[in-house]
Amino acid sequence: MAVYTEVSDEELGAFINTYDIGALTSYKGIAEGVENTNFLVQTETGPYILTLYEKRVNPNDLPFFLGLKEHLSEGGMNCPTPLKNKQGQSLGHLAGRPAAMVTFLEGMWVRRPTVSHCEQLGVAMAQMHAAAQDFELTRENALSVSGWRPLFAMCANRADTVQKGLQAEIEAELDYFEANWPSDLPKGVIHADLFPDNVFFLRNELSGIIDFYFACNDLLAYDIAICINAWCFEPDDMFNVTKTRALLKGYQSVRPLTQAEYDALPLLARGAALRFLLTRLYDWLTVPEGALVTPKDPGEYIKKLRFHRSIRSAADYGIEE
Amino acid sequence: MAVYTEVSDEELGAFINTYDIGALTSYKGIAEGVENTNFLVQTETGPYILTLYEKRVNPNDLPFFLGLKEHLSEGGMNCPTPLKNKQGQSLGHLAGRPAAMVTFLEGMWVRRPTVSHCEQLGVAMAQMHAAAQDFELTRENALSVSGWRPLFAMCANRADTVQKGLQAEIEAELDYFEANWPSDLPKGVIHADLFPDNVFFLRNELSGIIDFYFACNDLLAYDIAICINAWCFEPDDMFNVTKTRALLKGYQSVRPLTQAEYDALPLLARGAALRFLLTRLYDWLTVPEGALVTPKDPGEYIKKLRFHRSIRSAADYGIEE
Repeated sequence: MAVYTEVSDEELGAFINTYDIGALTSYKGIAEGVENTNFLVQTETGPYILTLYEKRVNPNDLPFFLGLKEHLSEGGMNCPTPLKNKQGQSLGHLAGRPAAMVTFLEGMWVRRPTVSHCEQLGVAMAQMHAAAQDFELTRENALSVSGWRPLFAMCANRADTVQKGLQAEIEAELDYFEANWPSDLPKGVIHADLFPDNVFFLRNELSGIIDFYFACNDLLAYDIAICINAWCFEPDDMFNVTKTRALLKGYQSVRPLTQAEYDALPLLARGAALRFLLTRLYDWLTVPEGALVTPKDPGEYIKKLRFHRSIRSAADYGIEE
Repeated sequence: MAVYTEVSDEELGAFINTYDIGALTSYKGIAEGVENTNFLVQTETGPYILTLYEKRVNPNDLPFFLGLKEHLSEGGMNCPTPLKNKQGQSLGHLAGRPAAMVTFLEGMWVRRPTVSHCEQLGVAMAQMHAAAQDFELTRENALSVSGWRPLFAMCANRADTVQKGLQAEIEAELDYFEANWPSDLPKGVIHADLFPDNVFFLRNELSGIIDFYFACNDLLAYDIAICINAWCFEPDDMFNVTKTRALLKGYQSVRPLTQAEYDALPLLARGAALRFLLTRLYDWLTVPEGALVTPKDPGEYIKKLRFHRSIRSAADYGIEE
């Protein structure tokens, strides 16, 4: 739930008039997104999404995020496309915040992904990786291995309040990953947060991908690893090999994995589990009393981390090479 | 901000299919409304608003609320019109809640109402009163004079923490109104919550009225009194006689006030100020730590109450008879 910034009808109307999209006829704050303020705006020419960037987004990253969406749209991906105002700019200002208007994407995210959804996700992710190959801007992954230890340091001394022994377990993981994280796998722009709520489907066909605010340059297969964790476990935390196979099948129908990427999957999935465990743990232990957003339970990702640590090779998942 | 009930794409899709409005293509929770959960739903035939009624709404009142909106729409008023499902019902169930779909109303509420907005509001309110005259259902005003003392009893002992002497002041008001509230003025269905956020304008023309969840049978002029408080004071709490005149002019262009109604305006406006002071005071003193909704400062209505108490006759406002 997130309308952090109130906008008056007068200032929004004036902002809309900087675009060539007709007059404003309606707007509603959307109770989605924990980082920014989003409005579903209607004008004489249709619906749009207006985002006001709040302080958790670094304004220096906005050209990368907006440029990437524009680049992917031009490359044929279905994702929100930034509108250019009459001055040709996609980034504006409203109510003291950086602000951008994007096209409205039809579809809904699925609460219970099926095997078919996972396969379509694989296809779309590989298409996104391909479409972004010639994108010129770059953005470092602030939440890659080197960012994990500083993040953990801010909450490590309370980790054992979540589960006894967790602090030592995570410290051993950090030691392991700092020594063993691969650097020679294919790289490119990854979404880095492709959870089900960021992928829309319409009549069971994937209709688009949203929320590129973690996108960055990193190992392509790491994006797959994030999705295995986010899409291929059941609500009871059991690993679903059929969904994982479908995800990889979809992905490889566009871009086959190299042998090294395939071999690295258990390590990448274990690293992806640690990365989301760390942010959830941090949020869990530092969320202020009475915050608007309920933090997600880190327990789910403790289990995923341990599961992947128990895997000795990609074949152990039950997936084919 | 209010999405109290989460709804999955599957259950919403099934619910939409009980209506003859095409397939669901999108839905977003709306960060508006403190009582219910609202979604802006898009189907193949256009946008709609879906409301899930939460526990603060009495289900027994829903036929009145939905019937009233239907009746007003048929009478030519612009307000959300309940859709009937394939069984001819306007009330359904979704995610364990009573639920209804209504038409989407274009327009936005104005943060800074002008004299013209006030005059248009007066016209629309009188049209609403006229259109509702032959509505057959009735609903008692739970927040009329007889409801004020029980409401105050739940927070009276903490009233002086807001302002010293407030408890005694409000008790004297309650004594006064219980002895002097008029009963012989014209009655009918009133909106009872016609604040600026419930009145939409499009290109500075009033485009509709929403949120009938306080509508009830009461004195028609009491609705005017509520609006004087809500629309005709400036942000510095100064009374704006020009806006009040415009409101009354608009109203009387449709239904002239009786002499008794005109004479009662100071008393009704003072009572309306007390009614909103009491609910704000109650919310202010009982809101749980860390609640999603920030309660409104009761101080504004303390000032309005005192202002109207200082008025000896309607002419003292500077308005003509």
